[in-house]
Amino acid sequence: MKPSFKTIALVGKYKSPEVAAPLLKLARFLERRKVEVLMDRVAGSRAGRGRYPALPLEDLARKADLAIVIGGDGTMLNIARTLAPRDVALIGVSQGRLGFLTDISVENMLGTIGAILDGKFLAEKRMLLEGRVDGRAHKASRALAFNDVVVSKGARGNLIELEVRIDGEFMYHQRSDGLIVATPTGSTAYSLSAGGPIVHPGVEALLITPICPHTFNARSVIINPSDDVTVEVAERTGDVVLTVDGRIGTTFAHPSYVTIRKAAQTTVFIRLRRDSFYNMLRTKLSWGQR
Amino acid sequence: MKPSFKTIALVGKYKSPEVAAPLLKLARFLERRKVEVLMDRVAGSRAGRGRYPALPLEDLARKADLAIVIGGDGTMLNIARTLAPRDVALIGVSQGRLGFLTDISVENMLGTIGAILDGKFLAEKRMLLEGRVDGRAHKASRALAFNDVVVSKGARGNLIELEVRIDGEFMYHQRSDGLIVATPTGSTAYSLSAGGPIVHPGVEALLITPICPHTFNARSVIINPSDDVTVEVAERTGDVVLTVDGRIGTTFAHPSYVTIRKAAQTTVFIRLRRDSFYNMLRTKLSWGQR
Amino acid sequence: MKPSFKTIALVGKYKSPEVAAPLLKLARFLERRKVEVLMDRVAGSRAGRGRYPALPLEDLARKADLAIVIGGDGTMLNIARTLAPRDVALIGVSQGRLGFLTDISVENMLGTIGAILDGKFLAEKRMLLEGRVDGRAHKASRALAFNDVVVSKGARGNLIELEVRIDGEFMYHQRSDGLIVATPTGSTAYSLSAGGPIVHPGVEALLITPICPHTFNARSVIINPSDDVTVEVAERTGDVVLTVDGRIGTTFAHPSYVTIRKAAQTTVFIRLRRDSFYNMLRTKLSWGQR
Amino acid sequence: MKPSFKTIALVGKYKSPEVAAPLLKLARFLERRKVEVLMDRVAGSRAGRGRYPALPLEDLARKADLAIVIGGDGTMLNIARTLAPRDVALIGVSQGRLGFLTDISVENMLGTIGAILDGKFLAEKRMLLEGRVDGRAHKASRALAFNDVVVSKGARGNLIELEVRIDGEFMYHQRSDGLIVATPTGSTAYSLSAGGPIVHPGVEALLITPICPHTFNARSVIINPSDDVTVEVAERTGDVVLTVDGRIGTTFAHPSYVTIRKAAQTTVFIRLRRDSFYNMLRTKLSWGQR
Repeated sequence: MKPSFKTIALVGKYKSPEVAAPLLKLARFLERRKVEVLMDRVAGSRAGRGRYPALPLEDLARKADLAIVIGGDGTMLNIARTLAPRDVALIGVSQGRLGFLTDISVENMLGTIGAILDGKFLAEKRMLLEGRVDGRAHKASRALAFNDVVVSKGARGNLIELEVRIDGEFMYHQRSDGLIVATPTGSTAYSLSAGGPIVHPGVEALLITPICPHTFNARSVIINPSDDVTVEVAERTGDVVLTVDGRIGTTFAHPSYVTIRKAAQTTVFIRLRRDSFYNMLRTKLSWGQR
Repeated sequence: MKPSFKTIALVGKYKSPEVAAPLLKLARFLERRKVEVLMDRVAGSRAGRGRYPALPLEDLARKADLAIVIGGDGTMLNIARTLAPRDVALIGVSQGRLGFLTDISVENMLGTIGAILDGKFLAEKRMLLEGRVDGRAHKASRALAFNDVVVSKGARGNLIELEVRIDGEFMYHQRSDGLIVATPTGSTAYSLSAGGPIVHPGVEALLITPICPHTFNARSVIINPSDDVTVEVAERTGDVVLTVDGRIGTTFAHPSYVTIRKAAQTTVFIRLRRDSFYNMLRTKLSWGQR
Repeated sequence: MKPSFKTIALVGKYKSPEVAAPLLKLARFLERRKVEVLMDRVAGSRAGRGRYPALPLEDLARKADLAIVIGGDGTMLNIARTLAPRDVALIGVSQGRLGFLTDISVENMLGTIGAILDGKFLAEKRMLLEGRVDGRAHKASRALAFNDVVVSKGARGNLIELEVRIDGEFMYHQRSDGLIVATPTGSTAYSLSAGGPIVHPGVEALLITPICPHTFNARSVIINPSDDVTVEVAERTGDVVLTVDGRIGTTFAHPSYVTIRKAAQTTVFIRLRRDSFYNMLRTKLSWGQR
Repeated sequence: MKPSFKTIALVGKYKSPEVAAPLLKLARFLERRKVEVLMDRVAGSRAGRGRYPALPLEDLARKADLAIVIGGDGTMLNIARTLAPRDVALIGVSQGRLGFLTDISVENMLGTIGAILDGKFLAEKRMLLEGRVDGRAHKASRALAFNDVVVSKGARGNLIELEVRIDGEFMYHQRSDGLIVATPTGSTAYSLSAGGPIVHPGVEALLITPICPHTFNARSVIINPSDDVTVEVAERTGDVVLTVDGRIGTTFAHPSYVTIRKAAQTTVFIRLRRDSFYNMLRTKLSWGQR
């Protein structure tokens, strides 16, 4: 059964005054459709001028069934991680070039969102990753990723040596610039630049892609999402850096290690048509048209 | 619950007198373990000298719970396709270099198979593909594939133009030497040579890998195995060739097309726990050891 | 010192009545510029209606300093091979999508060619390859290539095994779908589809690119153009096919072999300074613009 | 005419007491062959115990015709850069796994070097690169590279945007993790990990290889060594890092830029046999043997 959206949160790109006008336009449209509209505190105070409740993200997460984000893929990634534990569905609207996650243009948003409110949509479940650094010398830390968790060389810039285990079983020892563990959603982000394949978001899988591997028979490996990935740093390697969805996180060294697994949470993306994925690839990757 | 093996069929590589001795040795070993032994008619008449029933493959498929194949990956592929509709589990023994599917050596076979009879094994389900050519000018034909179904340029050797649909939805128009649709098992075969990723056999997915694409932004795409793949030949392209598990099949042209989907049948591979997938990759691909 | 062009041959794409009009337009333009105009016999009889001498290609090769070809890259390749032994410079005009070798559009041709006649041009020397099949069972045959000489699997479609020597020295034994030996000009043709690099036409080098190599550590290798390449067919491999600039040639088998070397002849391409190589790559490969 | 070696400098890996014994053994061998032996000050004080003059590298560079380096490829890279301006030929001896530049094993060194003293050798000229950072906010700095000059993302780890010009002409605007400009010698180092081709050291060319390009139609480009490469940092990109032969160098930002060109100096490598390059590749890359 499809969800119906009674309370919708509107979220705008951070520090971007230009989203105020479309946010307001969208809020009025939703109001006319008898939907309760909430705004995120930062963008909302500018856009709504008090007409719509402006709340911190955490409160939106608790109260809304659906969040509509106006911004780029980066904004979507940030919002998705915050809303994921609360089961809020997501729609992405882009002001500029369409993104992989923000594939509705501001120009078409009213028509598209209207159709979605009429029930013409697909709810696409998207997996999240959980990355957790452990180790003797290290206070455990934990992060959620929508696209990817990356272990890579630090500022000193030397080749690093990693030992990778899948569900406890040794896979390989690798000398490289780093290693990407990605969700299907993340397969079109950094992993693609590093030579990885494209994984349809409906496939239940994790993707391991090496970055500039020294032994060049190391291809991307697609594994079961029920298997966790452990990346251990070899003793002679210096500091490595953990990056989550493109944001630099923890720096750590041997004998600390990262465990990456499918998160308990998932996110739901709302899309108008079933075919949007291949459509989007054709556009973004200049694939052959008919 | 694990299956137990009461009737075991022994199958040898076709036209290979050298498999007679190990087949006989294995038959005697199984007999001592109180297993009913059947032999395939071709290899068995030479190996058993009448001591064990020698039957055509179709009868083995009906009577055995397990087939042990002595030969290479090619032999396994052929046998697997024949036995698949009948739910016979498979073990592969190699006389020479270990293969992806025949990963027990003749030297170690008694120990390994003894352990398997003791219940120390994993039953690994493997998907099969069904390829079906249809079209106005064409009598429909159908084939099962264990590794891959390939549409490629014919003897004239020119670039071909294909139109690919996923579950009826247009994916792309492609100019290339051809297109591989592979199972996870087939990901380490031809698709790997064409630049594709490695897919763990436990992942539920199909793999689409282009061969020498003219537009070089065409990566491998991993899709849901419930989606079928339709490959249509563009009007201006001449004959194309359909290859199934490396064996040349039908030649066809526009307006005929191929539909490739997950077959209703599956095959079960029997492995010792320690003979893992990553172990085999490390050996076959010279991946980094500890 | 730059060449000046006194006698110019006009050549049109074979069996293409639509080139008659631009050929005639170009002929009149050149006539007004006091250039002697010759036409190729096939296109010329249609275009010139007797006003310009219509000669076979071989005669054009002997008499003209420059040939202007209206057609696509395929036409250019054919003409270049015929004119190469006679030192005729070449200009390529395309009626449709600009090609790598035909990078002047019909719409702009008068302006561009006028500027070239005024001396505003670069004369770019391009290397040719000579491929020669030898062997016991085989009458020696020889062909010139502008882009590439390819040894690949034949109609039976199986993996082939090749042994490659550089200037007599063993390089590797390779199992693959085939092997491309390309000039820098050919680096943007088939070799690019097979994963090879782009080589500026001014670099003195040959390029060896494997096609779907079974051992996937086989990258493109760039060698000295003074070294010849010998490709021998392994004993257990069946027939292989030799393709020269995309046209299927000889079929041969062990113990025959191919020797590929830089040809004694070269071809000269005439370009406007601004129509540079990198400009063309940006357009053809959708590289990042400023 | 071949050089003859009258004064030979012996250089050992820095801070590696284990090279003292083979250095001394080699010194005695050379002495018996009537060659004047010099030692580098660091390794020599330990190895020679005063028997051989122990000098700083700069003095060795002035006095020796040939330097024999015992260590790994890293040691060779460092020594080569120091000796390059002085025209000292080089031989590399490895104590462990053979390297691309240190392809004589300690075990075989006396036989190999003896044969070289007998005149059985090839002198292989190797190009060096010069990288120079310029710009308003920046004091010009300059470095020599034997393998490669790399511009890559800094510690913040974000995608960078570069603008690349070849001999002043715009090639492309690129979003990536960085860009490698390599010599043929460097083609088997970092560039290979990033997907680049192998360039025979005898080819006169520079190699431009992108690192994880965001637009994945960006292949390696091979250019003329007489053309210089300018890499400019886009305005919105933060700090980038310049790495020379794997050692982190200058950090800089827009509007500074790097100019990379073939250095005036060259280095001469002494090798026993002509075929060492493909031999070495077969070993290092596990290429197919006969």
